[in-house]
Amino acid sequence: MTSTSGVKRKDDGNRVDQQKLKRFVNMVFQRLGVSEADAMIAAEVLVMADLRGVDSHGVVRLNPHGWYVKSLREGTVNPKPQIRIVQETPASALVEGDGGLGMVVGHWATELAIKKARQASVGITVVRNSRHFGMSAYFAMLALPHDMIGISMTNAGRQVVPTFGREAKYGTNPISLAAPAGDEPPFILDMATTTAAAGKLEIAARLGESIPLGWALDEEARPTSDPRAAQRARKLLPLGSSREGGSHKGYGLAIMVEILCGVLSGTVASLTPPSTGARGHLFGAMDIASFRPVDAFKRDMDQLLRDLKSTAPAEGQERVFVAGEIEHELAQERAAKGVPLHSSIIEGLRELSRQLNISYDLE
Amino acid sequence: MTSTSGVKRKDDGNRVDQQKLKRFVNMVFQRLGVSEADAMIAAEVLVMADLRGVDSHGVVRLNPHGWYVKSLREGTVNPKPQIRIVQETPASALVEGDGGLGMVVGHWATELAIKKARQASVGITVVRNSRHFGMSAYFAMLALPHDMIGISMTNAGRQVVPTFGREAKYGTNPISLAAPAGDEPPFILDMATTTAAAGKLEIAARLGESIPLGWALDEEARPTSDPRAAQRARKLLPLGSSREGGSHKGYGLAIMVEILCGVLSGTVASLTPPSTGARGHLFGAMDIASFRPVDAFKRDMDQLLRDLKSTAPAEGQERVFVAGEIEHELAQERAAKGVPLHSSIIEGLRELSRQLNISYDLE
Repeated sequence: MTSTSGVKRKDDGNRVDQQKLKRFVNMVFQRLGVSEADAMIAAEVLVMADLRGVDSHGVVRLNPHGWYVKSLREGTVNPKPQIRIVQETPASALVEGDGGLGMVVGHWATELAIKKARQASVGITVVRNSRHFGMSAYFAMLALPHDMIGISMTNAGRQVVPTFGREAKYGTNPISLAAPAGDEPPFILDMATTTAAAGKLEIAARLGESIPLGWALDEEARPTSDPRAAQRARKLLPLGSSREGGSHKGYGLAIMVEILCGVLSGTVASLTPPSTGARGHLFGAMDIASFRPVDAFKRDMDQLLRDLKSTAPAEGQERVFVAGEIEHELAQERAAKGVPLHSSIIEGLRELSRQLNISYDLE
Repeated sequence: MTSTSGVKRKDDGNRVDQQKLKRFVNMVFQRLGVSEADAMIAAEVLVMADLRGVDSHGVVRLNPHGWYVKSLREGTVNPKPQIRIVQETPASALVEGDGGLGMVVGHWATELAIKKARQASVGITVVRNSRHFGMSAYFAMLALPHDMIGISMTNAGRQVVPTFGREAKYGTNPISLAAPAGDEPPFILDMATTTAAAGKLEIAARLGESIPLGWALDEEARPTSDPRAAQRARKLLPLGSSREGGSHKGYGLAIMVEILCGVLSGTVASLTPPSTGARGHLFGAMDIASFRPVDAFKRDMDQLLRDLKSTAPAEGQERVFVAGEIEHELAQERAAKGVPLHSSIIEGLRELSRQLNISYDLE
């Protein structure tokens, strides 16, 4: 593999068919004790991240030394969770995740939020005792076929430094919102509340590239451009990077997410020992027709998105994008041509196929 | 006045008693045709901004040439709006603002969201055809005495440049969230989705100071440190400032706000002629007890906020803050010692007292 990948463009890699990849990932989770139905959801979330170019949250995380495999083997993730409603009203619920895979628990709780929104126009589900849920946009996007606006958030383990601080106190706490349009692709925001997602350091380190100074601090809390020093230190900076750049806003948004996902659920990740991997989430669905005719909403969405895309570009730029647009185009291209996987990722999948006795058909 | 203020510290100014200031502002709005009850709400919002140190949204805006006075005089703001529910469910409503003052319409719609949350655990009200509503945090904070989490957002007129663009296409679109704590002051986030709020340029221009390069562009879309050039151009940058700094996230958050406040209500400010001043808002309230016992929530809030405040400070820094903490301390100090007003603001209020025949007792 190494010799083959050496002649490929480093940002391309081997192309793997998405259906084959999903089947393979599904088998990996099943071999680790997850039910077939739940494994299918987990595979769907991971492969959708790869399709959309959110490579940091895709199958890169599925290798023998990665968190998913290790935690299922060690038992810190429950392969067969009893997900249940702890308390509920027509518009809300607190959900117990029973230590299950966040993708599975998140899917369950999002479907519940959508069901509630269909009845009550708004549905908010808050989840306790879940685990890492993968790409946040996946859950927000589940609302789209129902003509709803979808929202998802999660807390995460400590690796971000508050403004004016020198030590990490909270997580990358991402926010996602998906809203349907008419002829335009939907608006899909999915952002860590840090200047750069942790996965970006991983990618830069793998490619041997440096990172901009505003992304992270080193172990002595000095700005660093070395992705490996940044990975060792686990001291990312809030969106805005410095007080002058507005980092108190990125920091504030992240704590907003911790309050909604953590304090409201009872699983405050930033106060929980990292070894548990415990996560809280929030999922929301808003039924558009409860506010405004869906057609009018979609017409205005199209107009807004087109107006933004038609912005005169800055010198040296070709296009102005809207959130989700690049990912939408990548997903179409990758669904047709396959998902490009770096040779190191392929190697991890091959290794898993040997360890778990899964027939390997990805190349 | 000019000679007196000349000897004061420029960041301090004349101290004015908050109760007197509220009465005066109330009279100004009444003289401009607003009812006594509505004028009291508008005064409450403006003076609370001054108390909390959000000086850009306080009585600085109340002068003969400012937007509030001009638009009430010219009739682009309706002094006696018929605010009404267009459609509703137990958890949601679309509210018609009838062109009224945003502070008044916002207060009405927030109270409605809180009432709905008391019944349905979650209340979301979306407002169309409103106007500038002042300090966003005011509305989110109304939820606090009810042991609810409060949310408020508004769209705003075009003055922000999308990532990779060279022209302004949308507004500063702020987000606010307030959550109660136990012994700690509440968490109160209130942030424009730009690197710096427009009011910051105003303040820098008044004080003759330069601004950091990541805040705004000049008329030729070049980064500028001159606040007056930035004010002329009206080309603020999204939170993150550049693509490398994560500005696509600030841009994405702002469009999220435009979708929730504008597209969902039918008042899309970024597509509306600026002369109308039309605004859409979203207000949300979440009843904490519907998710978790309030005592447990507040105990975890205290623990989270204390943990963040106890973060070891970076070199050269003394303290790490949480959102709303500085404003809380300022509000206590200013309630006791008076609100400091720059001489140019005092001059505007004096001028209004003459024009509107209000007895002037602020000094």
